[in-house]
Amino acid sequence: MTAVPKSVFEYPVHVYPHHTDYAGIVWHGTYVAWMEEARVAFLRAHGLNFAHWVIAGVDLPVVELTLRYRQSLGMGMDAMVRAWLEPRRGVRLVWQYDIQNQATGETCVLGTVVLAPVDRQTRRVLRRLPAEFQQDLDRLYAE
Amino acid sequence: MTAVPKSVFEYPVHVYPHHTDYAGIVWHGTYVAWMEEARVAFLRAHGLNFAHWVIAGVDLPVVELTLRYRQSLGMGMDAMVRAWLEPRRGVRLVWQYDIQNQATGETCVLGTVVLAPVDRQTRRVLRRLPAEFQQDLDRLYAE
Amino acid sequence: MTAVPKSVFEYPVHVYPHHTDYAGIVWHGTYVAWMEEARVAFLRAHGLNFAHWVIAGVDLPVVELTLRYRQSLGMGMDAMVRAWLEPRRGVRLVWQYDIQNQATGETCVLGTVVLAPVDRQTRRVLRRLPAEFQQDLDRLYAE
Amino acid sequence: MTAVPKSVFEYPVHVYPHHTDYAGIVWHGTYVAWMEEARVAFLRAHGLNFAHWVIAGVDLPVVELTLRYRQSLGMGMDAMVRAWLEPRRGVRLVWQYDIQNQATGETCVLGTVVLAPVDRQTRRVLRRLPAEFQQDLDRLYAE
Repeated sequence: MTAVPKSVFEYPVHVYPHHTDYAGIVWHGTYVAWMEEARVAFLRAHGLNFAHWVIAGVDLPVVELTLRYRQSLGMGMDAMVRAWLEPRRGVRLVWQYDIQNQATGETCVLGTVVLAPVDRQTRRVLRRLPAEFQQDLDRLYAE
Repeated sequence: MTAVPKSVFEYPVHVYPHHTDYAGIVWHGTYVAWMEEARVAFLRAHGLNFAHWVIAGVDLPVVELTLRYRQSLGMGMDAMVRAWLEPRRGVRLVWQYDIQNQATGETCVLGTVVLAPVDRQTRRVLRRLPAEFQQDLDRLYAE
Repeated sequence: MTAVPKSVFEYPVHVYPHHTDYAGIVWHGTYVAWMEEARVAFLRAHGLNFAHWVIAGVDLPVVELTLRYRQSLGMGMDAMVRAWLEPRRGVRLVWQYDIQNQATGETCVLGTVVLAPVDRQTRRVLRRLPAEFQQDLDRLYAE
Repeated sequence: MTAVPKSVFEYPVHVYPHHTDYAGIVWHGTYVAWMEEARVAFLRAHGLNFAHWVIAGVDLPVVELTLRYRQSLGMGMDAMVRAWLEPRRGVRLVWQYDIQNQATGETCVLGTVVLAPVDRQTRRVLRRLPAEFQQDLDRLYAE
């Protein structure tokens, strides 16, 4: 995967019935929601309120998503979604994820999500962010 | 339940893995999505495009929802969502649902959903609809 | 609604993007998942591990679900799912919910969920629970 | 992407409210469900009943998932999920997806999903499938 990140955000999740499928384990699409939650919680923890961006007309849609499934998680288990931001590359934000079984510390799912800022109305990629949001990001990368 | 409806809309659904939970049967919240799909498909079949309402600033949120679960549906089964509109009562739309196992014709879930038109910005109930949408509804009830 | 409950369980939820729909507010079916989470967390807080029940062959499916929507919750808001158990009536468990906007304390959604214990294989209602699980429930109601 | 496939399966989808998020477009995780539906429908169209595999103790979990998002799909739009199977490589099944806007024919999302057969109880990868299921797959690749 990547080098050891300087700052990993940990977002705990409990496996509830609605996360599972017929196999008694977490349905593969459920992780996409968990990763979104961890990402938004990470931003909040760094003083960045994503809902404010959206109200101000800037959206941050996912443009790429990759998941590799190694181990399953069963109902009633506790998972830890570990997320970190890759070093800055232009306007895109690249997140790495390592979702672990809390009880064993084993990696269950590895993920990468790439976001790109767009104008909420036109859905076009923004090459420059409004100053306020650029400061949000600068702060995020500085930490 | 209610009297036999004059016009029942039938919306077929196949049970895919993501609809199920650890028990191997349809998760109880999945039916809420199926009922929404059947409702919107019903409206489309009667020439009413819900997305147009929303673009024009009128939303139709659910204000009440009731489900009674009688039988489960397993993965790979085929269900028929049978939906009909109750006779008009003011601005609210009252939908009844009978979700059946296609193979046996048995009722699996009975549901009721009540919608109320609201202004999309203020989220306040609209006592009068814009003329265009009122005509949409009049047509719906006339059939 | 009902009389003031003796013991209310509080389960906090943040509104993430995947909880919302085109209207920018929580999609009406999302609350079904939150209510399930609050219920299972309540049971855990009282020493009852739902996953153990399932492994032992006893399931607790939802047999009735009622939701009344009063106010919407927007993306980025914080909600509090307040849940309590109605006094015992036979083998069924009756849960009441009052989902509030944390910032204002206003009720957004009122809900009722009825569960019935079934044999996991046959899906038939169990008139008597295995002793271990009966003790779980007795403890739950005693508190 | 890959060479033109010999046999593309087309699975139409309508964008319902529950597929969307606050941005009024399909939430990025929704595509994972659509891809699963298209895959299972493809198998059914080729006489392979996935639920039978599961009952017989063979599961086909997703081991890798990649999505690239190019254009959004708004509520009320019609999409076509185009899916095909890559030439056989060992026991893994590699699916390619091109999800298009039906009205314009433009590609909205490109996806790849890799499945691996596992024993349902042990979750270990099966190097050999039971003869019945091997024949299912041989038929799938022969077409």
